[in-house]
Amino acid sequence: MGLDYVLNARSVAVVGASKVPTKRGFQTIRTLLDEGYEGAIYPVNPKEKSIMGLPCYASVSEIPGEVDVALVATPARTVPAVLEDCGQKGVKGAVILATGFGETGKAGKALEKEVLSAAGTHHIRLIGPNTSGMINLKANLNLVGLHDTPKGDIALLTQSGNMALTLITEAKLKSRKGFTYYVGVGNEADIRFHEYLEFFQQDPDTRAILMYVEGMREGRKFLQQAYRTTETKPIVLLKSGRSTKGKQSAGSHTGALAGMSEVAKGAFERAGIIVIENSDELFPAAETLSSLPPIKNNRIAILADGGGHATIAADTLTDLGVEIPELDEKTQRKLQAILPGGAAVRNPVDVAGGTDDNPSVFADCANIILSDPNIGGLLIVGLFGGYGIRFAASLAMMEEDAAHRMGKMVKSRKKAIVVHSLYNSEKPHSLDLLRYYGVPVYGSLDVACKCMGVLAQYGRYLKSYHAVTNFVFNWGAKAKPEGKKIIDRAYAEGRGALLESEAKHLFKLHGAPVTCDVLVTSAEEAANAAAAIEGPVALKIVSPDILHKSDADGVRLNLTNKKQVKKAYAEIVRSAKAYQKDARIEGVLVSPMVAKGVEVIIGTKIDDQFGPVIMYGLGGVLVEIIKDVTFRVLPITRRTAQRMLSETKSHPILDGVRGERPYDKKALVNLILTCSEMIEAYPQIHELDLNPVIVHHEGLSIVDARIILKPQEETQPSPAAEAV
Amino acid sequence: MGLDYVLNARSVAVVGASKVPTKRGFQTIRTLLDEGYEGAIYPVNPKEKSIMGLPCYASVSEIPGEVDVALVATPARTVPAVLEDCGQKGVKGAVILATGFGETGKAGKALEKEVLSAAGTHHIRLIGPNTSGMINLKANLNLVGLHDTPKGDIALLTQSGNMALTLITEAKLKSRKGFTYYVGVGNEADIRFHEYLEFFQQDPDTRAILMYVEGMREGRKFLQQAYRTTETKPIVLLKSGRSTKGKQSAGSHTGALAGMSEVAKGAFERAGIIVIENSDELFPAAETLSSLPPIKNNRIAILADGGGHATIAADTLTDLGVEIPELDEKTQRKLQAILPGGAAVRNPVDVAGGTDDNPSVFADCANIILSDPNIGGLLIVGLFGGYGIRFAASLAMMEEDAAHRMGKMVKSRKKAIVVHSLYNSEKPHSLDLLRYYGVPVYGSLDVACKCMGVLAQYGRYLKSYHAVTNFVFNWGAKAKPEGKKIIDRAYAEGRGALLESEAKHLFKLHGAPVTCDVLVTSAEEAANAAAAIEGPVALKIVSPDILHKSDADGVRLNLTNKKQVKKAYAEIVRSAKAYQKDARIEGVLVSPMVAKGVEVIIGTKIDDQFGPVIMYGLGGVLVEIIKDVTFRVLPITRRTAQRMLSETKSHPILDGVRGERPYDKKALVNLILTCSEMIEAYPQIHELDLNPVIVHHEGLSIVDARIILKPQEETQPSPAAEAV
Repeated sequence: MGLDYVLNARSVAVVGASKVPTKRGFQTIRTLLDEGYEGAIYPVNPKEKSIMGLPCYASVSEIPGEVDVALVATPARTVPAVLEDCGQKGVKGAVILATGFGETGKAGKALEKEVLSAAGTHHIRLIGPNTSGMINLKANLNLVGLHDTPKGDIALLTQSGNMALTLITEAKLKSRKGFTYYVGVGNEADIRFHEYLEFFQQDPDTRAILMYVEGMREGRKFLQQAYRTTETKPIVLLKSGRSTKGKQSAGSHTGALAGMSEVAKGAFERAGIIVIENSDELFPAAETLSSLPPIKNNRIAILADGGGHATIAADTLTDLGVEIPELDEKTQRKLQAILPGGAAVRNPVDVAGGTDDNPSVFADCANIILSDPNIGGLLIVGLFGGYGIRFAASLAMMEEDAAHRMGKMVKSRKKAIVVHSLYNSEKPHSLDLLRYYGVPVYGSLDVACKCMGVLAQYGRYLKSYHAVTNFVFNWGAKAKPEGKKIIDRAYAEGRGALLESEAKHLFKLHGAPVTCDVLVTSAEEAANAAAAIEGPVALKIVSPDILHKSDADGVRLNLTNKKQVKKAYAEIVRSAKAYQKDARIEGVLVSPMVAKGVEVIIGTKIDDQFGPVIMYGLGGVLVEIIKDVTFRVLPITRRTAQRMLSETKSHPILDGVRGERPYDKKALVNLILTCSEMIEAYPQIHELDLNPVIVHHEGLSIVDARIILKPQEETQPSPAAEAV
Repeated sequence: MGLDYVLNARSVAVVGASKVPTKRGFQTIRTLLDEGYEGAIYPVNPKEKSIMGLPCYASVSEIPGEVDVALVATPARTVPAVLEDCGQKGVKGAVILATGFGETGKAGKALEKEVLSAAGTHHIRLIGPNTSGMINLKANLNLVGLHDTPKGDIALLTQSGNMALTLITEAKLKSRKGFTYYVGVGNEADIRFHEYLEFFQQDPDTRAILMYVEGMREGRKFLQQAYRTTETKPIVLLKSGRSTKGKQSAGSHTGALAGMSEVAKGAFERAGIIVIENSDELFPAAETLSSLPPIKNNRIAILADGGGHATIAADTLTDLGVEIPELDEKTQRKLQAILPGGAAVRNPVDVAGGTDDNPSVFADCANIILSDPNIGGLLIVGLFGGYGIRFAASLAMMEEDAAHRMGKMVKSRKKAIVVHSLYNSEKPHSLDLLRYYGVPVYGSLDVACKCMGVLAQYGRYLKSYHAVTNFVFNWGAKAKPEGKKIIDRAYAEGRGALLESEAKHLFKLHGAPVTCDVLVTSAEEAANAAAAIEGPVALKIVSPDILHKSDADGVRLNLTNKKQVKKAYAEIVRSAKAYQKDARIEGVLVSPMVAKGVEVIIGTKIDDQFGPVIMYGLGGVLVEIIKDVTFRVLPITRRTAQRMLSETKSHPILDGVRGERPYDKKALVNLILTCSEMIEAYPQIHELDLNPVIVHHEGLSIVDARIILKPQEETQPSPAAEAV
């Protein structure tokens, strides 16, 4: 069952209905009545006979008609009983407002579990708890009690009631836009972000989805759903809780874990989501994306009536990765023909007074600029809308004419226009007209630039879209029987990690180029193994009790003859025992010394919100000091692995600097993919660490490999990483 | 003479006075009359007898009374003659509006020169040309013709008329603040940025200076003046023209060179200037800094009535480098006593409904928080101001009470409060009250955070302020006679660069540790020189015609015996001749091979706006690929050199990573200071390049040194670098 019964409910029971105007149980009924909800409304309160003219019931089960949704406005401790009552009635969904659940600690978590269990028994889907509620604006189904929420084509999904209030207020005061639905997800106890998203994707009236997120319970499913959704509908998202203080604040707010921001941002953008970092830009980005076509070629023009704004806009858009190409000669000539001599016509275009006595020239310029095939959209900055205010009232009519023409131009040419106007706060009619045609207008130059920027960003994403990204695992499908045995043996021996030799063996099973290491248990064996290897060798201790071999002085490098090898063997074993008296020594690993090359590291870990993620970076000082690394949510494709390589700042080193030959990037990409495959194959792996890997001009060498296992009792995939 | 006669003029001639209302020569007189300018107004126009009831003169020289300033509203080509006329009369200043000067190309530049020469002859100081004009709001001396510019305590200095209009409009519509002066600097042909700045510093009514800059003619003098000014008055500045397109747009706008942004930002901040990058934050930052005391200890508290805003604010402020410390226990207990159980009291503080029926609790909370000695300021975010609108009208009175109390609190405690309100656009009286007390209120959460951030930034700057920063050179004072000879010899021989041996000699003269290189001219000499050096040696070709020795195969490293040295000598000389047939070979440099260490580079160059700047970075791949370098305008102090070291991302390498001993940072700082001294000593130096320098655990080695000279005819210090 989808969320249709819940979000499009045809009948509502208000549990905790009240006659006191400050109570939610009053406000909701008032609003439902005032706004003309056509479904049945059933107040529930054992102490009242009727409320606002509606008969009031002592319990939900006493209600005569069918009930799709119950709004539960009673305190936390009463909720399990209320759900039992709802279950008797066959209610399909409940919106639980109360706080005092998972977000408050142990007792609250237990209560939340109880609520979930009651809901599960009776197949009731839950919004919340700890939510401000839900509004379906198409059906006037307003369970928040917030009057005058504007209707429109944006779906609003937030984890904070006051952010929702902010965004609704902004829509009301500063735009002509509004919403299809609002949902406060609250604690996400039952219905999760991705389910709402899927619902909004299917809703024919929703053109964009606007989200404020602090933390998600099932990030991976959300990504997978978002990836599907953004193919046809833009998602704009602000994720807060980056800083420790922000996380702390988010934590006490919704009880959600605010996840690692770097991973989150990368993951969201890979799913095509427009991630916003500045809260002023959140609603405008959604307004713009729901109103205008994306920029197809990342190239826009700027039209200004003064230098300062054009200069700032060019800087800002360049920072946002948007190109501002020179207009073609024909376009420049046409502009010159209608503008004064001093005008700049290359791009940015500066009218240089050419609109002073006739601002409808803006529309002429826009028409010329948008017919340049190289230009995908137009940003107008400066005084448009204010000519009638600043100079002469008669100019306002010409501005309105220009607004009509530009609005129609956007429709006919299918190219975006975004307008910045210094006079926005004065609310001239021409700017309202632009909005009527779906041309967004902002008083902030930065916001106008950002909106142009997100149209270009979404355009770039759609252009690069390939239906291959996959955020879910096919757990265990690619596991090798021998690999499973290695892991089982480690568990059987009570170990939390594989030995280096085991880890390398596992890599070898999955096709990675592992050096021909030999595990030996005597100095004589070591010497023989070394003799069979070409060139100098390294010796390393192998012990389940020693994870960091260097700390135990358990490594000897560059050994070139029998005598050295034997001596090294003896020293290593002695050091290891000195380091930890009762360490179990499995033996010593004899490996060829690795040829020179570029040092890189690859690792995986489990992110709180997105499950397994992979990290790649150039090694040595670059990773330790500069932290020049990149992350991806697993699994990944070859294309993504290639992108990881190219997005580290230090990537030119792999191409060879100072006249060097390039290094073997293909082998490196293959190794990253092997890591991805192994994580998918063995859900028992907690962390995997290849540090360092030496990339040669041909091939690479895995110098050290560590694999840490999850505690055996947790080897089932975490819910965050579960398949959809 | 200061700018008093110009900016505080007691009489004005309007050249190009007009009866046509759309003309500037009409609007200015109208505005002067309407706004009550008390000085004399003299319209000048040979075709009119009187304008707006004032007698009109055929020329300036015919005016009977004294004339302090002439507003010149006639076309560019007429300006030299007008200035001659003004000169006859003894006019002290002129504001030249016309475009068509230096910003438009060669002919314009010539005309600008002509204008400057006329002004110089008659000691007339010029504002502009290519300016929107000047307003002295204290004297109602409005030469822009812009009505209703609000009066206040901010001086406004811009290079773009429409940015000025933007900022004035913003002040008018969104604040209770206004201006002491507005000046459009235009082409800065005569009066420069630093002169206006000095004037504003001395003006007793100006509390902050607000600037929009595209490029400066004398950046170094500006920095020196700004450094003095920011000791007592904050300067807020936005510099546009970062991107190529932005520069192009700025270029066609004011004809100024938009300089290297990295250098500019660093230099401005070193002078204590608050650099703003987002134009929405420009006016608010000035509003806040002119109204409130800076945060003394970089520690602030956040007070919110909902989680979402607090979370975003904590993130944003953390990004801005502001601390949000946990409140002390006593403070937390006091807050708990007045807030409901669910409230968060650690910081951010979330009232959790505790203000719902009495918003004056905000003032109680603010009082408790600001009495925490660890807290330097308070940011309030959320709905304050909207309780009366959203809930019940009676709550508005309580909000007003809270506003009065919080406003007084700011005065008595000398700690800042900044307010974000979702209801700002509704203009409730409580928010206007806050502004009355100088508490700024913003509808944008991001802007409110930034304003708190700049108060903390200015506080940090003032705390670290030491009167030692110097942006001007004492050219040549520290030059050594022997050093001058080296440079003179190079010029005499027609060379544009010093030989490596000369460059190193120059460094040695200034105390840098230079290796005991020996210049030899035969293989035998080379072998003898090598024998006298401990350990292996390097040989390098020395030729005035070969700047890049490696390209000419002119370097041999790691030579350990006589035979190798002789062979290397022969090869090097042969290669050099093969590389360039007629290359003058001065000989070969024999140097000891340098021990291992950390590779760094140091270089200087001439910045368009600020003159000599120095660059420092870790060498090798780090500088080539990651571009992990830092810049400073020269000269610098020891403290600044130390900061340069510590602000590169890779700086921990110098402290020793992976258990290494630290490297000799003191020697490195000394070398950077030597470079600074040399640039000051020899204005002939165009670029200096030490690449690489190897820093050892003790001491360092300058492996290669290049010094490029300016063309001999340009060896006078550039105006940008002149002493003040």
